[in-house]
Amino acid sequence: MSHNQNSVKGNSGFYVGVDFGGTKILSGVFTKSLECIGTAKKKTKSHKGVDAVIERIARCILESLDECRLTIDDVKAVGIGAPGSINSEEGEVIFSPNLEWKNVPLKKSLEKILNVPVFVDNDCNVSTFGVFDAELGAEPESMIGIFIGTGIGGGIIINRKLYPGFSKTAGEIGHMVIDVNGPKCGCGNYGCFEALASRKAIFNKIHTAINEGQKTILLDLLDGKLEDMRSGDLRMAIKRGDEFVRNVVEQSAKYTGIAVANLINILNPAVVALGGGVIEALENEMMPIITDVASKYAFPGSMVNTKIISSKLGDSAGIIGAAALAKSSSNP
Amino acid sequence: MSHNQNSVKGNSGFYVGVDFGGTKILSGVFTKSLECIGTAKKKTKSHKGVDAVIERIARCILESLDECRLTIDDVKAVGIGAPGSINSEEGEVIFSPNLEWKNVPLKKSLEKILNVPVFVDNDCNVSTFGVFDAELGAEPESMIGIFIGTGIGGGIIINRKLYPGFSKTAGEIGHMVIDVNGPKCGCGNYGCFEALASRKAIFNKIHTAINEGQKTILLDLLDGKLEDMRSGDLRMAIKRGDEFVRNVVEQSAKYTGIAVANLINILNPAVVALGGGVIEALENEMMPIITDVASKYAFPGSMVNTKIISSKLGDSAGIIGAAALAKSSSNP
Repeated sequence: MSHNQNSVKGNSGFYVGVDFGGTKILSGVFTKSLECIGTAKKKTKSHKGVDAVIERIARCILESLDECRLTIDDVKAVGIGAPGSINSEEGEVIFSPNLEWKNVPLKKSLEKILNVPVFVDNDCNVSTFGVFDAELGAEPESMIGIFIGTGIGGGIIINRKLYPGFSKTAGEIGHMVIDVNGPKCGCGNYGCFEALASRKAIFNKIHTAINEGQKTILLDLLDGKLEDMRSGDLRMAIKRGDEFVRNVVEQSAKYTGIAVANLINILNPAVVALGGGVIEALENEMMPIITDVASKYAFPGSMVNTKIISSKLGDSAGIIGAAALAKSSSNP
Repeated sequence: MSHNQNSVKGNSGFYVGVDFGGTKILSGVFTKSLECIGTAKKKTKSHKGVDAVIERIARCILESLDECRLTIDDVKAVGIGAPGSINSEEGEVIFSPNLEWKNVPLKKSLEKILNVPVFVDNDCNVSTFGVFDAELGAEPESMIGIFIGTGIGGGIIINRKLYPGFSKTAGEIGHMVIDVNGPKCGCGNYGCFEALASRKAIFNKIHTAINEGQKTILLDLLDGKLEDMRSGDLRMAIKRGDEFVRNVVEQSAKYTGIAVANLINILNPAVVALGGGVIEALENEMMPIITDVASKYAFPGSMVNTKIISSKLGDSAGIIGAAALAKSSSNP
């Protein structure tokens, strides 16, 4: 029952979607039709330990409810996208290198604090579900979500459901090797998709080239402070005619196209949806190349019916997906 | 009803499994418990055209029945593994570059000739189903079959069912790019798994090296006739201490291990099963390397529960799988 007096009181159930990583916690309050009516944001502060982070997530949820003058009693269910491998049935974070968490019963702990049903899944799975459910109306029979930001992650929809894999780790597409002699990846191997096309890979290439004397508009744009560089700065530099930056971004798009083709050859999905900060900032520069290269590398006949799209959800894919997950899990 | 008088008369229904490609047609007769009781073999002669090949498949089926003194009336259903992309619901060969077939209603044509239900699927899907059903007792929740012969193909089992993909082309794992700067593949791209680790890739490497003056026991073994080289000759050469051949085979195993890791990272299956002529002949030489490299390249946590095995079905995976398909499709 709703305790508040505001205009949305008639709506019998709201959903909260939470997206959190090593840096920040985002919480969004959604209506039954998955319209966002309030958000809140907090730093994760994972160095403070598991309990402190869980406490911060709970507070972020309450703040986002406060934002739209609701309380936790108005919430039917909470969905959470968390980084790492997740046992979604138990709502447990099995292993998260980002947070340095191992076997954390996130669902149980939050349900104890909040007294509402909580559902947890991997952040990229949740974002994939967000694109699938909220953006594409749960229509594609199968879909692969590819999220390119600092790193690269993915999620897989098969038979209109998230496909978790046998140990709940399916969708680690960022560590698909594309160039066995390529640059070293954070995972220790060489030539992973993530080491070739993520924001980190792009920034590493730019830093190295600048250190070797490469001239670029970026140095002006950032007033020499390269460490502040964001994906939007790359777009700006390209717009101003910086051919060096254009080449680096196009190279990333080419690798992404090959990764997309690999995934199409393996899984032949109805839709491949790209998202994440890099795609959001550089959509016009990258998407035509990604589609071209993918169709060149896809096996004849494999791609005829597959749609390659860029998600319009941007940064919100995580919270929308988490709310959609909460909705679909609490109304089976 | 059985028209013959032999010892198997009491068995109320037999299944025929057919595996055919550009070169040969194999047919096997199976009991309800998928025991093979008769086989026949014919050349495909695809240059004679679609109707002639379908006629030859029908004759091959009848010859295999003859072999165990049965007739077509004893057969409950026929399963067929065909090369190319297959619409398994319609039993239609959509496109097969090997056979130069396009939109061939194989199921309908054979049912007209034989007057029994016919089920058709892609040859690698059928072999994957054979390993899954006949060898592993249909137990793994998810499985990837990888078949390394002249080319490389695969099949995917998800939720204990063959996963066809949106356009029925899922499992084209041979054209996953692993080394973007690698050798040219038959498909026109560079560095596909097939261009790095198939029998053709191995043979190409050996031919090139010999032309450049490389010494190898293979020249003695084959009496100089390199064109007769088979996978078994490679094993023989390695057994006799040929370090050059060992290196080439180990390199292929290494690429295969990377491909296995890519697939595990993407799909996190319960089982990865390797088969095909190359694996059959070089199991001892290749499997330990494949497993080692895969565990090095798999993302932490992704491979803990995944079993990597080599199939014991050998060349029969195709006909057993086709019979298993016939059985499961006719007893839904």
